[in-house]
Amino acid sequence: MSRIDGRTPEQLRPVTIERGWSKHAEGSVLISFGDTKVFCTASVTEGVPRWRKGSGEGWVTAEYSMLPRSTNTRGDRESVRGKIGGRTHEISRLIGRSLRAVIDYKALGENTIVLDCDVLQADGGTRTAAITGAYVALADAVTWAQHKKIVKHGRKPLTDTVSAISVGIVDGTPLLDLCYEEDVRAETDMNVVCTGDGRFVEVQGTAEATPFDRKELGALLDLATAGCADLTVIQHEALARTLGE
Amino acid sequence: MSRIDGRTPEQLRPVTIERGWSKHAEGSVLISFGDTKVFCTASVTEGVPRWRKGSGEGWVTAEYSMLPRSTNTRGDRESVRGKIGGRTHEISRLIGRSLRAVIDYKALGENTIVLDCDVLQADGGTRTAAITGAYVALADAVTWAQHKKIVKHGRKPLTDTVSAISVGIVDGTPLLDLCYEEDVRAETDMNVVCTGDGRFVEVQGTAEATPFDRKELGALLDLATAGCADLTVIQHEALARTLGE
Amino acid sequence: MSRIDGRTPEQLRPVTIERGWSKHAEGSVLISFGDTKVFCTASVTEGVPRWRKGSGEGWVTAEYSMLPRSTNTRGDRESVRGKIGGRTHEISRLIGRSLRAVIDYKALGENTIVLDCDVLQADGGTRTAAITGAYVALADAVTWAQHKKIVKHGRKPLTDTVSAISVGIVDGTPLLDLCYEEDVRAETDMNVVCTGDGRFVEVQGTAEATPFDRKELGALLDLATAGCADLTVIQHEALARTLGE
Amino acid sequence: MSRIDGRTPEQLRPVTIERGWSKHAEGSVLISFGDTKVFCTASVTEGVPRWRKGSGEGWVTAEYSMLPRSTNTRGDRESVRGKIGGRTHEISRLIGRSLRAVIDYKALGENTIVLDCDVLQADGGTRTAAITGAYVALADAVTWAQHKKIVKHGRKPLTDTVSAISVGIVDGTPLLDLCYEEDVRAETDMNVVCTGDGRFVEVQGTAEATPFDRKELGALLDLATAGCADLTVIQHEALARTLGE
Amino acid sequence: MSRIDGRTPEQLRPVTIERGWSKHAEGSVLISFGDTKVFCTASVTEGVPRWRKGSGEGWVTAEYSMLPRSTNTRGDRESVRGKIGGRTHEISRLIGRSLRAVIDYKALGENTIVLDCDVLQADGGTRTAAITGAYVALADAVTWAQHKKIVKHGRKPLTDTVSAISVGIVDGTPLLDLCYEEDVRAETDMNVVCTGDGRFVEVQGTAEATPFDRKELGALLDLATAGCADLTVIQHEALARTLGE
Amino acid sequence: MSRIDGRTPEQLRPVTIERGWSKHAEGSVLISFGDTKVFCTASVTEGVPRWRKGSGEGWVTAEYSMLPRSTNTRGDRESVRGKIGGRTHEISRLIGRSLRAVIDYKALGENTIVLDCDVLQADGGTRTAAITGAYVALADAVTWAQHKKIVKHGRKPLTDTVSAISVGIVDGTPLLDLCYEEDVRAETDMNVVCTGDGRFVEVQGTAEATPFDRKELGALLDLATAGCADLTVIQHEALARTLGE
Repeated sequence: MSRIDGRTPEQLRPVTIERGWSKHAEGSVLISFGDTKVFCTASVTEGVPRWRKGSGEGWVTAEYSMLPRSTNTRGDRESVRGKIGGRTHEISRLIGRSLRAVIDYKALGENTIVLDCDVLQADGGTRTAAITGAYVALADAVTWAQHKKIVKHGRKPLTDTVSAISVGIVDGTPLLDLCYEEDVRAETDMNVVCTGDGRFVEVQGTAEATPFDRKELGALLDLATAGCADLTVIQHEALARTLGE
Repeated sequence: MSRIDGRTPEQLRPVTIERGWSKHAEGSVLISFGDTKVFCTASVTEGVPRWRKGSGEGWVTAEYSMLPRSTNTRGDRESVRGKIGGRTHEISRLIGRSLRAVIDYKALGENTIVLDCDVLQADGGTRTAAITGAYVALADAVTWAQHKKIVKHGRKPLTDTVSAISVGIVDGTPLLDLCYEEDVRAETDMNVVCTGDGRFVEVQGTAEATPFDRKELGALLDLATAGCADLTVIQHEALARTLGE
Repeated sequence: MSRIDGRTPEQLRPVTIERGWSKHAEGSVLISFGDTKVFCTASVTEGVPRWRKGSGEGWVTAEYSMLPRSTNTRGDRESVRGKIGGRTHEISRLIGRSLRAVIDYKALGENTIVLDCDVLQADGGTRTAAITGAYVALADAVTWAQHKKIVKHGRKPLTDTVSAISVGIVDGTPLLDLCYEEDVRAETDMNVVCTGDGRFVEVQGTAEATPFDRKELGALLDLATAGCADLTVIQHEALARTLGE
Repeated sequence: MSRIDGRTPEQLRPVTIERGWSKHAEGSVLISFGDTKVFCTASVTEGVPRWRKGSGEGWVTAEYSMLPRSTNTRGDRESVRGKIGGRTHEISRLIGRSLRAVIDYKALGENTIVLDCDVLQADGGTRTAAITGAYVALADAVTWAQHKKIVKHGRKPLTDTVSAISVGIVDGTPLLDLCYEEDVRAETDMNVVCTGDGRFVEVQGTAEATPFDRKELGALLDLATAGCADLTVIQHEALARTLGE
Repeated sequence: MSRIDGRTPEQLRPVTIERGWSKHAEGSVLISFGDTKVFCTASVTEGVPRWRKGSGEGWVTAEYSMLPRSTNTRGDRESVRGKIGGRTHEISRLIGRSLRAVIDYKALGENTIVLDCDVLQADGGTRTAAITGAYVALADAVTWAQHKKIVKHGRKPLTDTVSAISVGIVDGTPLLDLCYEEDVRAETDMNVVCTGDGRFVEVQGTAEATPFDRKELGALLDLATAGCADLTVIQHEALARTLGE
Repeated sequence: MSRIDGRTPEQLRPVTIERGWSKHAEGSVLISFGDTKVFCTASVTEGVPRWRKGSGEGWVTAEYSMLPRSTNTRGDRESVRGKIGGRTHEISRLIGRSLRAVIDYKALGENTIVLDCDVLQADGGTRTAAITGAYVALADAVTWAQHKKIVKHGRKPLTDTVSAISVGIVDGTPLLDLCYEEDVRAETDMNVVCTGDGRFVEVQGTAEATPFDRKELGALLDLATAGCADLTVIQHEALARTLGE
């Protein structure tokens, strides 16, 4: 089977990560997975939410949103509708959990980092691009906070890297990194979040049309694990560049 | 390791399913997984949402909610706060997707069934109890609709049964059907939704503390598959009883 | 005139009060007035709202809600609509006022008790069942708080009991404890809240179709006073049983 | 006992009714009960809410609101808080029910009249002044609609007049038409809505501090009935004047 | 060209300012510009919003609202819709900025004055009437606060007076103080806020139909400056009267 | 006086306009005024809002929003707060009015174009950049609609171009195109929207600290008119490039 855009089943779309995209944010990244473009900023503030005060531990949270015309048909703004939809809530929570999985709260100290992931253009995989980009913005924000002595040197606030990718079964074939057209046609759709050492942080598989069996699940996890390993390399390369280049 | 309540790692809590708990709803069930009690009603209405009109196909959706004192500490009502929280949204969507996985929309015709799952008492596993109970309420509602000729006889609207269970790794041991105290201590937490034939509808695994590897994932899926098979038997037994007994 | 369900005009529907229905709440009751079933929980928290701090006095408040399918036709959830309707507000306020009428704030000390009254099934008289059940839950919560030394022994926080019943004129005949079908047809509808000593806490009479005169009002009050006296006996009997039986 | 403002227990405050206070509304009244001033407008629109279409019957509804500085201390606007409080809901519903009690829906035809009652200055009794004033605005709006042939001549849309007054027990004495200072000190507070023929539309009595007995209730109803009779005369006088004088 | 109401192009509508219209507010005014009537109250509270605490400086803010039937067709209440519309927001902000332009925050001390401007009847120019009336209410509130020693004597909290007027080009002719019918037909519409010394606080011109050039802008500013000068005189006269006359 | 960034008083910041920045939108532009970056998309839909149906005329509207970390300190999302702030409302309305000033509704036919202006990075002048960029996105969307025959050829839907710039008085000197630091210090701040032929669509001047006189107003309008003329040239150059270059 040949894919819409000519990729092999186990091939990622072109991934780009531009750091330092904002002059205000402590960490900022424009990430693209093919035509999916997500703008991720990391904002550091001293102090933590009330329920965590005095614990000596930090906090990391995330908010995801799509610009109204990031999709093919314009969607209403959630601010105009006056409430956040279920999908937005779900993805914001997923991003937050994924990044907290690699945070050492003690090392972070009583500081809060908010990751904002705004989808400028959507073509499938927005939540996985958001997680992958947010990690890089987070890493830059942590570095910034260490330079500013807001976070103490010594123990590292980041215990590992984290990245995410979608996989799915389309016409019976397991595919990596679905674009929108593939996603719509997928029988099964799965988002997998991995740490740099190849372990799982989140596995979310959904049968869109037909329930899947253990063997299919295995094939999808194989693809995803390899995809995340590729993303980990790309994240390292992005972070190795001097900021501003 | 012995569990808090004396169960073996692969043992469900006592499960009870009382059908016909409401005189108004077309299907209604009070389900308990140990001390977790969820009241599930299925409401049938003729017609479908606007975006589906004229398709000849039906729709199934779900809403989940916790009573304010279903938990150990009273929580604010979402109606009073004026908005639905992310967790509620996420679980409502999960229940809806899970039940739609066993619906033949064509056979249902242009009718809508809404599943309301209200947690009366929470002790871990509310979403899995909700899915398991909602399936039974749905089955009763479909039977009611067939009797009333709202749904035509012939093709069956339900293509299989569906049930759900939580699994997790606590102190390094994979456990089935976590109660609240176990859930809080779990390193990894997973909710698995299966059809009666043993395939997966949803697999949602989250590393709460430590990322998990492929082998741990396998052990959890083994437990969950067996647990769902047990629940399927209990669902069949419940539906085999005459309604009102 | 014979009533729909064969009762005499001055007869209550069968009333049942099950205490200890929740393992979490400090007081909890499932009360039924015929097919009307309301789940009442009393939650004790130390401290009072800001405007009452330092007064040495406690506070009691209530929230009423109907499950979406407690009625014959499913209603939208107020949490989904994002606002609480006028009827819900009105009944919540009535329940709160009724219970505060028998509270000695000084004796309660700076503690707050919230009564949650959730209608599981509605067949007329939900607010009166809620008040009558909430009193029993409140009594159990006060006892609990005394055992825990949160409330001091000595002066009693409860100065009397409180119960409530609906009355109405249907086809010219004054009736006690209207079920839904009677309520819909009533020319005049009245809710009466009494203390155990037979005095009034609230009298709310509404002419639904024809204005009523002083004589009709008198007949309704006679019925209601007798009905509340019956409920007071039932409340005492329920509280006399050992909790958990 | 002498009252704060020198009235006898059974005396109304000075009542004024100015008609034609708005050039836009079909009926409009500025009513004052002493220092309580409510601006009431009646707006006629052809057509009825969806649920009433095709019935041949009209609809009457009301909305009550207090200007933020109508009270001694400025209150937040409900539009700014984004939700309507319970008290506002409750009073709006009371006004609507009270006026509907004297409406012949068939004679009104499929037309809707909305009564807006905005409190410009509050000194106790705002809801009773609102009902009493709204009746006059409603009467003018009905006359307007008949002139415009929107409502047909023949059967009268108004079957009687309606007025309302508060009564209460202060320091053991039953008093008519409580001003704010009396209202705050009342042991029992009651709002009574009567038709012109002296029958009751609404009786809402609340024990603020001490439960009340049947005899006290009787004394309050005597006062209220007489007070409403006085208001009925004042309404007739106001309506007898040529509009614009 | 003769205007609808017979005025000359540079003529204001009859302006009346009644002070002391509320017994509760520290300053209160009923202002009319022809048939436009706005009720303005000024509420003084000690203390300032959190972001200003400890600055030694006060704060002045405003809220504008229209009663639902202040216009020819009844509008929905913003409290019922659950949100404030853009136009309301915009005008509230304009009024607040306009009055702050003549406030010496230091002289006011850490006190807050809220101006509420509620439109009772609208016929064009509601925002300009609101600003002009709010100034007078503000002046009375400042005087009250000085008498009460809440604001210290010495430095004056008000540095100048402020008034506002609308101007527009209708059928090619620049006109002062547009009534509703003129406003609807205006090609260009401008609101101008001036201090008593004739300088500008706000100039907001909008081409409703045709863009305007520099010369037209000049003509409009000439008209507005003269109109504001007239209003300044009327404000001084109103404030020169003894309160309560 | 030398400006912070070395510009002369009458000099614009570097302006860049990148067209075709979105693959989904019918028109899309990333515009920058120095460090202010706004992403503008134009979405064409056939049909018009209900109140305009059957008129044969089209509609153009706009929504403005700032990403949470577009500013120096992270702001809460309006979707999370559940309501749109006054400033956002005000600017959205300004952008919509500005673009409608150059639209021939008849020529547009019954089609709607929505302009979304999302601020990615803010450094003063976001609303003027938004208007200037939105015009270019609108022009591309109109061309697209003509190619698709959604808008008929013949009469042109755009009657002129439109651009906007801020001006202000800082330390007594009138300056063009204020950056954030200048804006904060400005005594007077004005936003001016001009058509390509040099006439005014909107003039909004606000005295932030000191009222301004006619002469100062004139100096600001001179600067703004020249600035808009420069922007008009830049818009023409941007539109002259082949899309995609």
